[in-house]
Amino acid sequence: MDTIPQRIASLRAAMKNAGVDACLIPSSDPHLSEYLPKRWQARRWLSGFTGSMGTLIVTADFAGVWADGRYWVQAEQELAGTGVSLMKIDTAASSQHLQWLADSLQAGQTLAVDGDVLGLAAAKALQAALEPRGIRIHASIDLIDAIDPNRAPLPDAAIYQHASEFAPETRAAKLARVREEMAKAGAARHFISTLDDIAWLFNLRGSDVSYNPVFIAHALIERDSATLFVGAGKIDADLAAELARDGVNIAAYAETKPTLRALPADGALLIDPRRITLGLRQAVAEGVKLIEAINPSTLMKSRKSAAEAAHVRQAMEQDGAALAEFFAWFEANVNQTRITELTIDEEITAARARRPGFVSPSFGTIAGFNANGALPHYHATQEAHSEIKGDGLLLIDSGGQYLGGTTDITRVVAVGAPSAEQKRDFTLVLKGTMALSMARFPRGTLSPMLDALARAPLWQHDIDFGHGTGHGVGYFLNVHEGPQSISRAIPEPHMAMQEGMITSIEPGVYRAGQWGVRIENLVLNVASEKNQFGDFLKFETLTLCPIDRRCIDRALLNQAEIDWLNHYHAEVRERLLPLTQGAAQAWLLANTETL
Amino acid sequence: MDTIPQRIASLRAAMKNAGVDACLIPSSDPHLSEYLPKRWQARRWLSGFTGSMGTLIVTADFAGVWADGRYWVQAEQELAGTGVSLMKIDTAASSQHLQWLADSLQAGQTLAVDGDVLGLAAAKALQAALEPRGIRIHASIDLIDAIDPNRAPLPDAAIYQHASEFAPETRAAKLARVREEMAKAGAARHFISTLDDIAWLFNLRGSDVSYNPVFIAHALIERDSATLFVGAGKIDADLAAELARDGVNIAAYAETKPTLRALPADGALLIDPRRITLGLRQAVAEGVKLIEAINPSTLMKSRKSAAEAAHVRQAMEQDGAALAEFFAWFEANVNQTRITELTIDEEITAARARRPGFVSPSFGTIAGFNANGALPHYHATQEAHSEIKGDGLLLIDSGGQYLGGTTDITRVVAVGAPSAEQKRDFTLVLKGTMALSMARFPRGTLSPMLDALARAPLWQHDIDFGHGTGHGVGYFLNVHEGPQSISRAIPEPHMAMQEGMITSIEPGVYRAGQWGVRIENLVLNVASEKNQFGDFLKFETLTLCPIDRRCIDRALLNQAEIDWLNHYHAEVRERLLPLTQGAAQAWLLANTETL
Repeated sequence: MDTIPQRIASLRAAMKNAGVDACLIPSSDPHLSEYLPKRWQARRWLSGFTGSMGTLIVTADFAGVWADGRYWVQAEQELAGTGVSLMKIDTAASSQHLQWLADSLQAGQTLAVDGDVLGLAAAKALQAALEPRGIRIHASIDLIDAIDPNRAPLPDAAIYQHASEFAPETRAAKLARVREEMAKAGAARHFISTLDDIAWLFNLRGSDVSYNPVFIAHALIERDSATLFVGAGKIDADLAAELARDGVNIAAYAETKPTLRALPADGALLIDPRRITLGLRQAVAEGVKLIEAINPSTLMKSRKSAAEAAHVRQAMEQDGAALAEFFAWFEANVNQTRITELTIDEEITAARARRPGFVSPSFGTIAGFNANGALPHYHATQEAHSEIKGDGLLLIDSGGQYLGGTTDITRVVAVGAPSAEQKRDFTLVLKGTMALSMARFPRGTLSPMLDALARAPLWQHDIDFGHGTGHGVGYFLNVHEGPQSISRAIPEPHMAMQEGMITSIEPGVYRAGQWGVRIENLVLNVASEKNQFGDFLKFETLTLCPIDRRCIDRALLNQAEIDWLNHYHAEVRERLLPLTQGAAQAWLLANTETL
Repeated sequence: MDTIPQRIASLRAAMKNAGVDACLIPSSDPHLSEYLPKRWQARRWLSGFTGSMGTLIVTADFAGVWADGRYWVQAEQELAGTGVSLMKIDTAASSQHLQWLADSLQAGQTLAVDGDVLGLAAAKALQAALEPRGIRIHASIDLIDAIDPNRAPLPDAAIYQHASEFAPETRAAKLARVREEMAKAGAARHFISTLDDIAWLFNLRGSDVSYNPVFIAHALIERDSATLFVGAGKIDADLAAELARDGVNIAAYAETKPTLRALPADGALLIDPRRITLGLRQAVAEGVKLIEAINPSTLMKSRKSAAEAAHVRQAMEQDGAALAEFFAWFEANVNQTRITELTIDEEITAARARRPGFVSPSFGTIAGFNANGALPHYHATQEAHSEIKGDGLLLIDSGGQYLGGTTDITRVVAVGAPSAEQKRDFTLVLKGTMALSMARFPRGTLSPMLDALARAPLWQHDIDFGHGTGHGVGYFLNVHEGPQSISRAIPEPHMAMQEGMITSIEPGVYRAGQWGVRIENLVLNVASEKNQFGDFLKFETLTLCPIDRRCIDRALLNQAEIDWLNHYHAEVRERLLPLTQGAAQAWLLANTETL
């Protein structure tokens, strides 16, 4: 097998051939997905760095990966001896690599980047950094094809229908709603690249990437028809016939760009500038008028219907019952038999897999004991993982894909006897989770304002955490979905909460080298009162799983918080009891006692 | 005396003469001040509308004032019979008048606006709205001069030194600090238009406008000298000599533009695009390189030094003692003798005027009884004011300029017996004020995040308020100053809190037609802990005045809130007791009892 230095040497030869002086390889695919099919893991293949985010830049005499703090330890190990440098950046959103390019390249030199995997926003930032310095950008070249003879093909997993029992709205009805929005915006056509939008709109699912039940495709929606661009063989004849009855045609994935190039100029095209690559944007025929707006499906998908919410509540009950089984097993075995962080993943996934409607985990389980729990994105591996024994805190962040919804939950449980300081951290985080879970707020409230409500109880003790408070969650779709957000990023209008949105609330405390606490529930946004002061929203907590009372310092809670917790545990008990038995039921009863 | 219709007719004649089709008259002056000298109150002179904000637009066959909700009642009365229409807008920041211009004017037509009173940001918005439609903007014409033979001259009040006892940093030291920032930014020169920046930087004060102790001037700072552009006779020979010793020259106010036009191209000029008019920006000689950044003095001025903060604490004690005298008088006389909202203003100002260091009120007193208290910007007039009698809530928002600081305080007191609902509103607002007063938060926290902390207790009861939570406050300067803010506007970096900043915390509840509650204290930002989680800030409450315990529903407070309030009242008692006597002292003792 070839080595990293050999691969970098091949790339440099291809760069020389193509007359380019530098090459940028982002962690991205033509659909701007979070999880990349193997075909588009070029940054990993070229550098050996396996982290989920990072940017590789190669010049004739330099190669480096720009990565943020959560990857430094891992990247230093993985890059050792490859000749590829680790370039440390402050945050995932940092543009330090752009500054490096602007400083390192000369006027007249050329940077190559594959525009087909470069988001339009990233492309604009690149242009803004380089063009004033006279540095050229060559964005229509894919150097990987030239140097990787074994490059993975497109994933070929079959596409299937989202069972109609769990998909309350037909694709015809969804298409009609999207066409209404297109008409309002004055668009005759609408092009979509984002995989969860396409899966939602057509009530289809797939298994082309880990954890997200999506499939590789683009879609073009016209007034009376729609076209799905997918790989050959992924849609069988029966499904194709059913799609055809709804006016949905199938075209080859490779026909996407030719179709955009051949678009007639007789109507405007709606595209979402945040959800399309430079390559596809540039493929659109010149005469076509463009309307830039958020994909209508992105907003529709985020607002779960009452019927979808009802399914999610059932999925949450199954998920909670699975967790009760897992925790009953864990409590019976911890400090008795050997349990590692990897065992946790196996057992929790097995418990979920016994539940009806379960499809797969919704992301890679994070199980971190003590110091490992202080790494928010920690993943135990075969090579490096801890045994769970003695005293401490165990953080478990996990979730499941069910036909009726997607779950994502973090709990921290005591192993042995938690210390007073651990209980204080746990209780402060819980206060943050509860503060936002109980909150009411006017429609349109900016994302950072909600974020502040979860942080305030921690701030009060001069504690903060380095990630956002919450992310949107799909309906048997991506565990991270937009457009809403609960974070302190500079807010944009689409980040505001709307009825039907499902979002996580997950503040944390991470003491480097000691322990981490995060308590995460998913909440459904619902209407509160509408009066002379405004139109108010609130949250319904969806996640059902006891919160470890052994870790709570009751003196830090006020009465409203104690009431909320007791009410929550009463509901958890009532709804999970019918779905559990034996040890799991006993564990549930013991762990939902009044505080 | 000429009438409004006659003035509008004169303007139309002048417009015709100048070949323009429409004229826009903002509420602004060459310094972008909040309070306008009479000379620049053209919008008021032409329309009769006396509100502090509003935009007048006149065409050949239309005249209208765009104003937001707080002015509608007043504007309808004042505009009646003038032929000037009231154009209702949603908020003060609305751009609806731009849309109206874009829709009403034809391509090729011309809009006149005096660029000398148009902020650069407003000018850019005007251009963005009109130029794509082919509508021309003529911004170098002042039609008022042509039609108002009695136009007020520049104010000629004397400029005086801020007594050195109260100005701990010399102007030479301040100029040196500004020059350091200029050097860092690569600027050889720096031009300032904003009056509070100029007053702060030169340790000078004036009385050219109401309430703000500033004087009309521009300033040019160079490496080794500085020039003040002021009206003749405002600076006497002694002061001029002293300024000269610090390298500060005096030039005529009218020399401002000629000086900018003659600037040499041998060094860059630092200007603040948010704090300069289009006219002055355009006056800068063409070859001069511009560096756009916030005025260094704006940030320096906002961060009060330890010595300034010490003076402010003393001013707060005097202000609190004056309020104790006022409230003692009020409690003895309410429902006994006739007291109106106007009497409140007289008595409160008289009490402050008896205090050492008092100069003037810092803004027009707002005293609103019951329904009038529900209008956040209410001002009682000779023609329209209420008598304070019977039962209800009286809201008083007032402040003083002292040589050692600027105060701004709102208290609501019970008249007769407050209702349960009034007590609930009062207590919820108090919870908001306390929540933010107690808060700790990391350096750099976005303005809306702090705003949310004050709103959350109100939101929890589906209540909100329509203004920001807090504004910066000057040091014997403007009662509203930047750059920090506590509001839900889309945040910008300079809005974040920094140590030394003085800011108001003033949430409210306004029940239209019933009553209003607002509880406002000024707070000083100070350092909290710096640790592995961040660098934390907190507030020291500066304002010293009892909060009416008769209006508090104790059941709505948690123990932390009761503790804060008791501690606050203990400190108010301790610090004001030595400065009061007789009835005021008795009132103070009675009103600072433990809750």
